[in-house]
Amino acid sequence: MSKILRVNMTNLTAKLEDVPSKYRLMGGRGLTSAVTSDEVPPTCHPLGPNNKVTYAPGIVTGSGAPTAGRLSIGAKSPLTGTIKESNAGGIAADKLARIGIKAIIVEGQPKEKGKFWVLKVDKSGAELMPAAAEWVGKGLYEAYPKMLKKFGDKVGIISIGVAGEKLMAMSGICVNDPENRPSRYAGRGGLGAVMGSKGLKAIVVDDAGGASLALANKEAFDTGRKKMTDALLQHDITKPGGALNTYGTAVCVAVINEAGALPTRNFSSGRFEGASKISGEMINETCKKRGGVGMTGHRCSPGCIIQCSNVYPKEDGTELVSCQEYESLWSFGANCGIDSLDVIGELIRLCNDYGVDTIEAGATIGVAMEAGLAKFGDGKKAVELMHEIGKGTLLGHILGGGTALTADTFGVVRCPTVKRQAMPAYEPRAIKGIGVTYATSTMGADHTAGYTIAPEIFGVSGKVDQFIVEKADMSRNFQYVTAFLDATGHCLFVSFAILDIASGLEGMVEECNGVLGTNWTVDDIGRIGGDIVKKERAFNEAAGFAKVDDRVPEFMKYEKLPPHNVVFDVPDEVLDKVHNP
Amino acid sequence: MSKILRVNMTNLTAKLEDVPSKYRLMGGRGLTSAVTSDEVPPTCHPLGPNNKVTYAPGIVTGSGAPTAGRLSIGAKSPLTGTIKESNAGGIAADKLARIGIKAIIVEGQPKEKGKFWVLKVDKSGAELMPAAAEWVGKGLYEAYPKMLKKFGDKVGIISIGVAGEKLMAMSGICVNDPENRPSRYAGRGGLGAVMGSKGLKAIVVDDAGGASLALANKEAFDTGRKKMTDALLQHDITKPGGALNTYGTAVCVAVINEAGALPTRNFSSGRFEGASKISGEMINETCKKRGGVGMTGHRCSPGCIIQCSNVYPKEDGTELVSCQEYESLWSFGANCGIDSLDVIGELIRLCNDYGVDTIEAGATIGVAMEAGLAKFGDGKKAVELMHEIGKGTLLGHILGGGTALTADTFGVVRCPTVKRQAMPAYEPRAIKGIGVTYATSTMGADHTAGYTIAPEIFGVSGKVDQFIVEKADMSRNFQYVTAFLDATGHCLFVSFAILDIASGLEGMVEECNGVLGTNWTVDDIGRIGGDIVKKERAFNEAAGFAKVDDRVPEFMKYEKLPPHNVVFDVPDEVLDKVHNP
Repeated sequence: MSKILRVNMTNLTAKLEDVPSKYRLMGGRGLTSAVTSDEVPPTCHPLGPNNKVTYAPGIVTGSGAPTAGRLSIGAKSPLTGTIKESNAGGIAADKLARIGIKAIIVEGQPKEKGKFWVLKVDKSGAELMPAAAEWVGKGLYEAYPKMLKKFGDKVGIISIGVAGEKLMAMSGICVNDPENRPSRYAGRGGLGAVMGSKGLKAIVVDDAGGASLALANKEAFDTGRKKMTDALLQHDITKPGGALNTYGTAVCVAVINEAGALPTRNFSSGRFEGASKISGEMINETCKKRGGVGMTGHRCSPGCIIQCSNVYPKEDGTELVSCQEYESLWSFGANCGIDSLDVIGELIRLCNDYGVDTIEAGATIGVAMEAGLAKFGDGKKAVELMHEIGKGTLLGHILGGGTALTADTFGVVRCPTVKRQAMPAYEPRAIKGIGVTYATSTMGADHTAGYTIAPEIFGVSGKVDQFIVEKADMSRNFQYVTAFLDATGHCLFVSFAILDIASGLEGMVEECNGVLGTNWTVDDIGRIGGDIVKKERAFNEAAGFAKVDDRVPEFMKYEKLPPHNVVFDVPDEVLDKVHNP
Repeated sequence: MSKILRVNMTNLTAKLEDVPSKYRLMGGRGLTSAVTSDEVPPTCHPLGPNNKVTYAPGIVTGSGAPTAGRLSIGAKSPLTGTIKESNAGGIAADKLARIGIKAIIVEGQPKEKGKFWVLKVDKSGAELMPAAAEWVGKGLYEAYPKMLKKFGDKVGIISIGVAGEKLMAMSGICVNDPENRPSRYAGRGGLGAVMGSKGLKAIVVDDAGGASLALANKEAFDTGRKKMTDALLQHDITKPGGALNTYGTAVCVAVINEAGALPTRNFSSGRFEGASKISGEMINETCKKRGGVGMTGHRCSPGCIIQCSNVYPKEDGTELVSCQEYESLWSFGANCGIDSLDVIGELIRLCNDYGVDTIEAGATIGVAMEAGLAKFGDGKKAVELMHEIGKGTLLGHILGGGTALTADTFGVVRCPTVKRQAMPAYEPRAIKGIGVTYATSTMGADHTAGYTIAPEIFGVSGKVDQFIVEKADMSRNFQYVTAFLDATGHCLFVSFAILDIASGLEGMVEECNGVLGTNWTVDDIGRIGGDIVKKERAFNEAAGFAKVDDRVPEFMKYEKLPPHNVVFDVPDEVLDKVHNP
């Protein structure tokens, strides 16, 4: 029987609780959002004693289902003020599931500020211990090996970096990958600062003696897993040797640039002249040319079939960073006018090291460049700005506070955020559906909340013109399906396959039935996902969010974006229809 | 016939327009809020091209009515995101009225950033000219004399300081006092940044050849003026030699401290051990002892009977600053743990010089002290922090962004703001009615929006216990009456007299009738004031503000305030009843 582990940082206690029946069929985002809704006052201060942070593996995580190793982390966000779920790959979710932990809920706040604890979880229970001095205030490339030395190199470590310790709103929460790099992030929404505000440096998960998830219906599970596996192996985007496996998510660079929707120099253009130099093709080529440890087709979590990660080498073939992800390449690349993979790789490495979200960081540097703190294209200065965050200087605190705070500090009007979270790598003026998602997502601007890029650009589930504005239904459907998918523990990228291949979608549902003993069909996906989104939205409404918060920034309505010279012209009525169909 | 002057900063044009009939009976806050409501999109970026800033003297300003020289300035606020009106004394409003300017509306935005213009207004019209280099980027104690040298020493100057030029959200708009000091401020809500975002450094008003306001009904006016004058001369608080005239607004220090409601060290206590050293009594005594230019009973605008301002001397009797106001004494004093009038005087002078709101500045320094940037009580460091704002350093940009931005930057949870505007000098936990006003005002935390302190502490209009929580009706009534009063151009301080002396209240209405030719009675005050507040509130709702924004900060609900050890326990239902009776 899996349990919920409740950790109280006021009293420094950790105890196992039975899973309430209302949570029995939940996992991942479905569970973290339910706990946040049930236990966190919507108007509380995100860094105060009344916020809670919840960690949950997905429903099928730890079952052997393919590409299903996601760890969901949820809380009220200090960046957006909304409810927040952000999920990461890495090895920790699988281990939590294998020792029967359905969720960890961290609540309260120590009286003493600036002191940090580590939570050790294994099959026998959980224990809080003071964090060793050598783990705190250090880069994670230094701290992870030291924690691994203490706890053994088979543990999963869910940790914040210095940005989270310093309560910065762009801080994420890190999970080690299969080679123990501090590289996989629940990056968005400043959840690292919530963890930091609770004095919790890290959760260490040791699954020694653990076992694969118990199955309520093995036959259903096996059938489902096979269908999912087959779909992933078959689809051109997800199969071995397919687009993601060969080029990584960076395959998007050329495509989105061609579509005129690659936000460039702080969202002042949709096309970047240096796009080909920071593309997936260039990463693949560089890995081959430089050799050494460089590789594409790397997996970020156990049991992944897609394997879209990469290890990017320095000129001498030693490792610079894993992973050069599309969003990071864009945020530090096109968005900052930087066209060097080596510079971008260094910037991503600094994000991993200091514990911040690469999307928010790159968008922030873009705004800082617009404010005159550096010139667009000046990679050296961008690196210096990232170091300010790591050092926690005054400038570091501004930048670490994220895009909107940086814009407010310097009076920058062109601030590409929704609900104070930076927009990712797709220009809403040029691709309307993703703008609808940015505006109406329960999480602030977030491409993963409803990735309409799939039909709008890649033709997945049928091609839809990028300039059509009537996309309320499309965005809502994507938001609901995604919420279900985020609850299963599968990686979002399985959606390329299962939205095109019907049996794959069935397979995902059957896997869940196998684990939970339910009799869900694909017709239940919208309802279950919709319930999650509605719960999140109710939280946000209680926190004070209104219709007018479901909008893109004003400048996108009067500044024409080259090369298509388009403004964001989706009528407000369309945006309002997403959650009020 | 008075006119509206419309200034377009995109095209650099200024032209006179007839007053639309809908604005004929309006003035001051009534007019600025109407224009903002009618012409500014509620969701626009406050520093973008679609915001507008409106300047309007009150209905009776320039008529010879006593204590009626207020200039209202309105826009969408970059600090709060709400509609905003802030009004100042000084000599400009009277001059605008005397040359027949009912309002100046400044719209648009120059393409070129960082360049500034000055608007010269006189009887013959208006003209925009580039600001001279010696007026920009300088302290206002340096810039005002230079502008006066250019335009003559009889002009009114409405100007921003360096904080407004740098788009800081705590910047105010300055007006010279009768001795041409840059000392009277429309301080609240960051209106200086809106003016700065339009490239407008100053408005210079020359009333040569102007005349007293035309009267529609001289008899009504004379009767009203006499009643108002008599009330002011008669009431203990407002009369010559009365409380305000003798001690200034600083008379509140001892009283509010005694009530356990003087927010101390960033709102962690309600009583300050150094209160007697920063009191009105001490100011009076020091002025007498040091002699020289030191004086209490100074007037801040022409025709004032109350004369509550002061000129505070250095030890050698030369001028340190005018004026040591209660709110400023509190914000830099008790709230920062500083008990020296000389240090506080220097801090106030820096606010005047750099062009920032003393309330927001002191509250910000309090939060900065809590964040560890200085120790409570360290006046030297507080002065240094203020200089950072003036220099526009990185730290200056953080602090200049105000209390909430500073708290966000450093992760400080005890952030004493409502709608991101700093609370003034009355603790809502210890005086519940003012908390109701802070929470529900259309302007963010603002004591002047509905000064329930009058009954709760001073017994004006009947004494009401400070701890009673059922004060929705009281706050609403005060908010409505105040909105009317702010429309007349009278100083808020006349309310002490006219709320106790019925004929004074009649007099205010009759003065308006005299100017406008209306037949209003005191029974119309609530309706007219209520219409203003409702219009403002509708703007805020359209800008996205909801019921949950009408709340004091969460920490006040769980942190007990000494010495009474009380939390803010006004039920949400009471707060919601203010605007939904």
